[in-house]
Amino acid sequence: MNNINRKKINKTDKKATIVLHSGDFDKIMSAFIVGNGFLSMGIPVTIFFTFWGLNALKKKGFKKAPLSKMNFFGLGRWMINLNIKKYNVASLDILAASFKQLGGRMIACTMTMQLMGIKEKDLREDLVTDYGSVGAYCYESIDANITLFI
Amino acid sequence: MNNINRKKINKTDKKATIVLHSGDFDKIMSAFIVGNGFLSMGIPVTIFFTFWGLNALKKKGFKKAPLSKMNFFGLGRWMINLNIKKYNVASLDILAASFKQLGGRMIACTMTMQLMGIKEKDLREDLVTDYGSVGAYCYESIDANITLFI
Amino acid sequence: MNNINRKKINKTDKKATIVLHSGDFDKIMSAFIVGNGFLSMGIPVTIFFTFWGLNALKKKGFKKAPLSKMNFFGLGRWMINLNIKKYNVASLDILAASFKQLGGRMIACTMTMQLMGIKEKDLREDLVTDYGSVGAYCYESIDANITLFI
Repeated sequence: MNNINRKKINKTDKKATIVLHSGDFDKIMSAFIVGNGFLSMGIPVTIFFTFWGLNALKKKGFKKAPLSKMNFFGLGRWMINLNIKKYNVASLDILAASFKQLGGRMIACTMTMQLMGIKEKDLREDLVTDYGSVGAYCYESIDANITLFI
Repeated sequence: MNNINRKKINKTDKKATIVLHSGDFDKIMSAFIVGNGFLSMGIPVTIFFTFWGLNALKKKGFKKAPLSKMNFFGLGRWMINLNIKKYNVASLDILAASFKQLGGRMIACTMTMQLMGIKEKDLREDLVTDYGSVGAYCYESIDANITLFI
Repeated sequence: MNNINRKKINKTDKKATIVLHSGDFDKIMSAFIVGNGFLSMGIPVTIFFTFWGLNALKKKGFKKAPLSKMNFFGLGRWMINLNIKKYNVASLDILAASFKQLGGRMIACTMTMQLMGIKEKDLREDLVTDYGSVGAYCYESIDANITLFI
């Protein structure tokens, strides 16, 4: 990294919230990588899992998550799969476990659970820290400065 | 919701802006649900409709909006449609009407209207509060702390 | 734009960061348009290119970027293509050049470069300002108030 000078930031008033709306492998990965990045800098992070993002919290959800794009120029599908394999399941499992261990919160959206016919027993209780509605998300986000919708 | 303690937040300096780039049913729904959540907490919210998001503002746009993912593990398409139907049109209509009634702003992006061949008369004048360029979006977002791109 | 009154904002403590995860033409366009908007208002902007977003930084990447949605109601594909053509390649090239000239930073994500088998020589060195990991993104975002994930 060039061009970055040390800066002094008061981290106590910083906060990140992420809506994970997508259930795509690469987007789940982005959510946890970014989440872990902020957590390791001492910034509190909450991920709110809604719509297809709820699939990430299902048993074997990480294994079944598709890529958001499969065919794109310059890379064959087999090549991605090959590279993805190095990271795939283990990676998301480790990322999610780290996220929880570092104090990250994972809220499952109760409204979309109903809409999509998902029950609490379908979700991994080792990951979910709370069940909540959009109110919980908004409440957490009011004083956040970093807010992502993935 | 566990683990949430009451906190004191000065809401007068809080603000949310949402870019709605997607025209998918579930993403439009997320935008309005989150928007209404913040509005009902006293936080001003602006949604900037651009690219496919403009379709949401079209006459019958809510009825025609597709799901962002149709086939995914664990749920058949028919099952989603069944559950979606309970909410579908009425729901987006009600969400959008509430959003406006609570004081939410809806800006239609004039640049992408041109790009996509959409005229003012194509859009629902009961919903649109302003027509504006990216400058309007940036201007609103400068002092926002909650900024989502959906 | 109606309804907007002049307001006084201290811009020195404002900042925007954008994760460009998508490689879709319309999303790349949104990222640069919004980025240029903030830059021209004096707000520093960093775009972090990751996953398919890295394709935007490839040689001829702008030419090859697909639309995020091709078929949608109310507009035939040919009509979009016709309108897109007016803007297409030239437009993204100009937008990206302006972004850099206005002082915008473009970080290529080294972790996903590995994952996707992309080498530094594959990317446009006239655009990339830094190569960095998620840490670089988080570091830039800690004190940002505008954070988008596209």
